[in-house]
Amino acid sequence: MKNIAIGIDIGGTSIKGASINKKGEVLKTFSMPINHKRSQEETIFNLNQILLKFLKDNDYKKDNVLGIGIGIPGVVDVKTGIVSYSNNLCWKNLHIQKMIEEATDLPVRITNDANAATLGEAKFGVGKKYKNLLMLTLGTGVGGGIIIDGKIYEGNLGKGAELGHQVIVVDGEECTCGRKGCLEAYASATALIRDTKHMIKDHQDSLLSEIANSKGKVDASIAFLAAKQGDKYGNILVNNYVKYLGEGLLNLFNIFRPEAVVLSGGIANEGEYLNSKLFEYCKQRYYGFRTTPSVKIINAILGYDAGKIGAASLFF
Amino acid sequence: MKNIAIGIDIGGTSIKGASINKKGEVLKTFSMPINHKRSQEETIFNLNQILLKFLKDNDYKKDNVLGIGIGIPGVVDVKTGIVSYSNNLCWKNLHIQKMIEEATDLPVRITNDANAATLGEAKFGVGKKYKNLLMLTLGTGVGGGIIIDGKIYEGNLGKGAELGHQVIVVDGEECTCGRKGCLEAYASATALIRDTKHMIKDHQDSLLSEIANSKGKVDASIAFLAAKQGDKYGNILVNNYVKYLGEGLLNLFNIFRPEAVVLSGGIANEGEYLNSKLFEYCKQRYYGFRTTPSVKIINAILGYDAGKIGAASLFF
Repeated sequence: MKNIAIGIDIGGTSIKGASINKKGEVLKTFSMPINHKRSQEETIFNLNQILLKFLKDNDYKKDNVLGIGIGIPGVVDVKTGIVSYSNNLCWKNLHIQKMIEEATDLPVRITNDANAATLGEAKFGVGKKYKNLLMLTLGTGVGGGIIIDGKIYEGNLGKGAELGHQVIVVDGEECTCGRKGCLEAYASATALIRDTKHMIKDHQDSLLSEIANSKGKVDASIAFLAAKQGDKYGNILVNNYVKYLGEGLLNLFNIFRPEAVVLSGGIANEGEYLNSKLFEYCKQRYYGFRTTPSVKIINAILGYDAGKIGAASLFF
Repeated sequence: MKNIAIGIDIGGTSIKGASINKKGEVLKTFSMPINHKRSQEETIFNLNQILLKFLKDNDYKKDNVLGIGIGIPGVVDVKTGIVSYSNNLCWKNLHIQKMIEEATDLPVRITNDANAATLGEAKFGVGKKYKNLLMLTLGTGVGGGIIIDGKIYEGNLGKGAELGHQVIVVDGEECTCGRKGCLEAYASATALIRDTKHMIKDHQDSLLSEIANSKGKVDASIAFLAAKQGDKYGNILVNNYVKYLGEGLLNLFNIFRPEAVVLSGGIANEGEYLNSKLFEYCKQRYYGFRTTPSVKIINAILGYDAGKIGAASLFF
């Protein structure tokens, strides 16, 4: 009986996979590093070798595996199974579906990595209770996913749901996408690190600066650590972060009026401390004020497994 | 046989209604002015009187009328049939569905006016060919509608699709909704008139100013009229308008990646002159550039009937 699927999550530095059952449970896992010096075809050739070994070692065959689902960072064409382009991986026009289908003789489906994670959380994670849901991944970039009426909404050719690439400041900060002022350029970890570095440079005797020194590097948690200890500059950074992310969320709330938004990625680890500030910011600015239903701001619970589980669930 | 529905479009100054058949054709019409000095209950009482006369005059009865659909400017609760609040009409917590059902003994459904117009265009107008579609009404405000998989998406309690209330300039121009920098504050006729007035004040010997003087008033068409005649200041206004509306459209394209966006309302009357400029602006800034499918920018074709037809179609 076909009761499992393989879920694969392609990241910037590694490829992680797992067999997943219909309950969304992770059974066996595998992973491989991505060598950026290799061509895209070589990387898929490598992946196929590891996949074949994984299938063989676990006695996974055509009669018990539904297929292989893959989440990919970048612009993918879900119909043709082609990666149109991936900024981080320097992939372009890669016929990934066909290449893996031919090697494994199993059906392959692809989707954007943020959509895969959204599917995972919506079907098996924190989003199970909600029919209309958004997910925002606050990591190196800001990824997005849209669940409407319990189903993923990907847009034409699977190229929508780029929730991080909404301009909130016309002519604002440069974004990796080529536009200026995208939410990603204000609410990603990359943006918060940029702002934290500026603040440290201007206030070298602050607690903020002290924390960064003791850590030996500036990461996205420093502003929050300093703010929690009452540091003025940490608070400025956090309030500013809440303001810009809050404006982006409010835009999405006015557009979708979802039941909830799920935050994931590194910065979402700030949990309730961040969520409550965001909720407060948004509550005061809802369209229609008290007449408009509030939107729950919650955290993802599947962690790094969300992408694999969601990718596998393309077959459930 | 029940083969018609009554569609009602409530505007800021008048209420217009019609009987509509299942082909989306307007059969008979009625209208009444809104007297803002009257209470919301008195206005609905009046509407009921006119509705009863309309039904009687045309021999419309329970056995040939499916129901009465109403598009309302403001925040409505589609489930309970209550107008939560309407800024323009100063209506609040109005049990409109119940009041009209009791008077007419016909089923009543309500929706937001922009959603009604979107439904009309999607089912019977320019949007018939498209399954995933957005509509933007560029009038006094900027209204929006979302069609996903052929169906209207209204969000929780019917309070989504406020596409004009996305902030594109954090801390920008004041918006009627209470936030600052919404698309509506840059792309509505109201905004263009504001900008045109400023430009005329600063350049009183321009062609722009001349056109305004000969018209006797400043409306949203003046900037376009001047630009088409090569006026420098008209061109600045139009290019600026295209930039801000273009950024708002690009945000929506990245989020939804729809097949097309339908523009309606006063400014959409600029037609191909405006559409082609917007298309060019967006084409150069698509997420994923050439790998991303382009979005058609088209005009509504049902004009002022869209709202009535869409409201009636709540029963088709």
